[in-house]
Amino acid sequence: MASLRSAARLRPLATRLTPQTSGRPRRLYATAAAVKTATSTSSGKQAFFPGEPAGPIVKTAIPGPESRKAIEDLHKVFDTRSLNMLANYSQSFGNYIADPDGNVLLDVYAQIASIPVGYNNPTLLDASATKQMVSAIINRPALGNFPSHDWASVLRTGILKVAPKGLGQVFTAMAGSDANETAYKAAFMYHRQQERGGAHVEFSEEDIASSMLNQAPGAPQLSILSFKTAFHGRLFGSLSTTRSKPIHKLDIPAFDWPQATFPLLKYPLEDHVEENKKAEADSLADVERLITTHHLPPCAVVIEPIQSEGGDNHASPAFFQGLRTLTKKHNVLMIVDEVQTGVGATGKFWAHDHWNLDTPPDMVTFSKKAQTAGYYFGNPDLRPNKPYRQFNTWMGDPARALLFRAIIEEIERLDLITNTAKVGDYLYAGIESLAKQYPGEFMNLRGKGQGTFIAFDSPRRDQFLKKAKSVGVNIGGSGERAVRLRPMLIFQQHHADILLEAMEKIANS
Amino acid sequence: MASLRSAARLRPLATRLTPQTSGRPRRLYATAAAVKTATSTSSGKQAFFPGEPAGPIVKTAIPGPESRKAIEDLHKVFDTRSLNMLANYSQSFGNYIADPDGNVLLDVYAQIASIPVGYNNPTLLDASATKQMVSAIINRPALGNFPSHDWASVLRTGILKVAPKGLGQVFTAMAGSDANETAYKAAFMYHRQQERGGAHVEFSEEDIASSMLNQAPGAPQLSILSFKTAFHGRLFGSLSTTRSKPIHKLDIPAFDWPQATFPLLKYPLEDHVEENKKAEADSLADVERLITTHHLPPCAVVIEPIQSEGGDNHASPAFFQGLRTLTKKHNVLMIVDEVQTGVGATGKFWAHDHWNLDTPPDMVTFSKKAQTAGYYFGNPDLRPNKPYRQFNTWMGDPARALLFRAIIEEIERLDLITNTAKVGDYLYAGIESLAKQYPGEFMNLRGKGQGTFIAFDSPRRDQFLKKAKSVGVNIGGSGERAVRLRPMLIFQQHHADILLEAMEKIANS
Repeated sequence: MASLRSAARLRPLATRLTPQTSGRPRRLYATAAAVKTATSTSSGKQAFFPGEPAGPIVKTAIPGPESRKAIEDLHKVFDTRSLNMLANYSQSFGNYIADPDGNVLLDVYAQIASIPVGYNNPTLLDASATKQMVSAIINRPALGNFPSHDWASVLRTGILKVAPKGLGQVFTAMAGSDANETAYKAAFMYHRQQERGGAHVEFSEEDIASSMLNQAPGAPQLSILSFKTAFHGRLFGSLSTTRSKPIHKLDIPAFDWPQATFPLLKYPLEDHVEENKKAEADSLADVERLITTHHLPPCAVVIEPIQSEGGDNHASPAFFQGLRTLTKKHNVLMIVDEVQTGVGATGKFWAHDHWNLDTPPDMVTFSKKAQTAGYYFGNPDLRPNKPYRQFNTWMGDPARALLFRAIIEEIERLDLITNTAKVGDYLYAGIESLAKQYPGEFMNLRGKGQGTFIAFDSPRRDQFLKKAKSVGVNIGGSGERAVRLRPMLIFQQHHADILLEAMEKIANS
Repeated sequence: MASLRSAARLRPLATRLTPQTSGRPRRLYATAAAVKTATSTSSGKQAFFPGEPAGPIVKTAIPGPESRKAIEDLHKVFDTRSLNMLANYSQSFGNYIADPDGNVLLDVYAQIASIPVGYNNPTLLDASATKQMVSAIINRPALGNFPSHDWASVLRTGILKVAPKGLGQVFTAMAGSDANETAYKAAFMYHRQQERGGAHVEFSEEDIASSMLNQAPGAPQLSILSFKTAFHGRLFGSLSTTRSKPIHKLDIPAFDWPQATFPLLKYPLEDHVEENKKAEADSLADVERLITTHHLPPCAVVIEPIQSEGGDNHASPAFFQGLRTLTKKHNVLMIVDEVQTGVGATGKFWAHDHWNLDTPPDMVTFSKKAQTAGYYFGNPDLRPNKPYRQFNTWMGDPARALLFRAIIEEIERLDLITNTAKVGDYLYAGIESLAKQYPGEFMNLRGKGQGTFIAFDSPRRDQFLKKAKSVGVNIGGSGERAVRLRPMLIFQQHHADILLEAMEKIANS
């Protein structure tokens, strides 16, 4: 057992079982946080999943010996250089992710913000065992050609049940990148239809011939406008709008599309009101300049409600209202990329619900926590004027659409949006007080009132994330120095306590 | 029952049950073909799935009244203009697809060539009910960061078990388009690494800064060379290499990448030996010209073994050998797009196995029948020199990788590649004799020795496809006038008989 003690800050915890281990008791080790939580949960707080571990268990350095062996083997057939932690999903439960060495971490990264209602969630387990799900797995349709007779019902009771206000239509896709790219395609087709004089006007011979040569006017000299430090995906079109980090973009050809300055707000917000207002005004001016002068006219602006991968950069509702006004004024579509912000993490189902827009965005893209993907839209003219223009073999995956439906049911059953808003406030207040105590460790705290979608800057970020594992927490980063918190929607106050205690330990170490 | 009789060419078939209907016998209608097959199957031929329908059942015009109602409803939330046939997958079995009106068609289109081993295949049904599958559905990992401890084993016993010779590595993706685009990205990164002097050479400051501006050299002025009438997907990068039809490309910005002439062979091949040889030589000359002179130097050539969407255009093994030689000579990568041709339909697991290349292609992309997707590669330098260069949140879907593993097991259990090669020869010979009888109806028959990957041109193609439904068969088209046959791998001689008889009826009508 000596090697187990090598992990710092561990002390023996009374003999207990992780929920999935069988009869034989084992002596386990846990962090102090875990000990405390085990107590606080037992003292009456209602956990969503009674079988969830009481707290993290850190038995070895991470990766431990079993993980190391498996990673070495995996590397022979799969690039493991970006591997963060080898997981054992059969031993993971709720907010906790397990590894092959018996470590069990509180997971506030959640598969890059894509697990909504916990590992091995019992409701999802039931949904995955239904005849309908099994059929969706083994009888995968080409949705555009041969949809199932119950596809309308699957959409209405799932994806469309949570459609953003005013956007009652959906085009389904596979993941965030193609959700964005198909939205971009819809925008280009819409724009050119308008230029032609309407959906009823036929393509010209020149359009047809030049499109086959990848030349204008058939392949038009138009663009999508995005923002500096934005992230919208990594395929060729989406990557052209991504401006997060060079490592995402280097050596990949890109469209010469414009990027507008994003308002980089200063924190705390209340101390920088005028500066921040000016930053947002400048950004909007930049958008208008690019819309009116760029050599490839933008037919849509794409924006994240909170720039996530790019460093958790926020802007005010007023900024987004201004952007909506500007896009309307110039007849440019507004695409809101809710791939990371959507499905509840900001304390509303869609982050753009925080803005109180007069008119909804033209399209909203989604993926990650939805486990499926696509874009919502409202204007019927965003359906292209002919069939087969927006089309591909699978056009999404009904199995994943069914899973999203079960996720939505679980969100409703446990009132998880309300939970996330409330726990987010609690967590934010906790970090705020940590930041007062350790001002050099928790900087530019942001995400107030945005559920658990919280981040701060750390002067030694990568070290911070590494240390987090040793104190039982799995945390992710974003941008150059942000620590981004992306708990699941089932993250509760007692989990927040564990996280806060763990972060204090890191600050102290 | 009067309305049922409105469908042409139907006659009553003795009272019988479809495999999924419950106790109550119903009087059904079937085509003459069905009657014959019911006899021939009962006369001793071994069906892979004894419960498969004995033949097609056509009860109504398609779409029938139930389908019409459902389609009208679906159209409110989902664009149905490209809908071919509303399906009822719970009533579909093996080679047969059912609809809500009780029609059951022999399906030789198979979800645009993407169903490998039949609807509701019992082996896949078992695989979809395993704990491993359920976990993969509900605990979806960000594969690059948090792979499961058994991911290496899932790869080795599945995707990598059928890796093309010499290509023992894989990068997993979601569908054909992103499989191709990630392969293109790998090609660009590889090319630029070589230009820099190797994987160990760091990016220059200029590379880094310009990449963030979508400008060269960081976003390089390089290209992927594809062929006229090729199809490689519909996202921005893949669509730039797609040259099948204007409807795929109109109004979407594209990279100014080059296209080479594809050798359009004349049939029957034996009557056009010299012409076809010249067409292939001209095409290779065009490739070499573009590689050496195009203003955006190609760093890879992408090609389908048989151009599928573009009209089922074939070329000889000698042509592909020549292309391999040329790409080697000019240090350009060769990417073989096996999205439609892969996984057995040509009578070999990979269509490029027919070519006997001296050295394998650099990358082979796959999807459709694999139900998962990605690209195979061999050269370790095709792993980019740093982590996070080829990366995205999900990087594929382990649930679909597990399904592919089960598909592979089923292919092995029933020896389906051999079956497909043999039945393909039988079917080809049958169409050949139809073509002699009806030379104006079955033109330019192609796909000899290519399993069931068979096509011919029809002077009234769209009508042909429409009529096929009324005689109990679901068939697809490709290009401008090709009828493309894409049966599943469980398509047997008695199915071929039904198909041949149905096609003769169409020719006669």
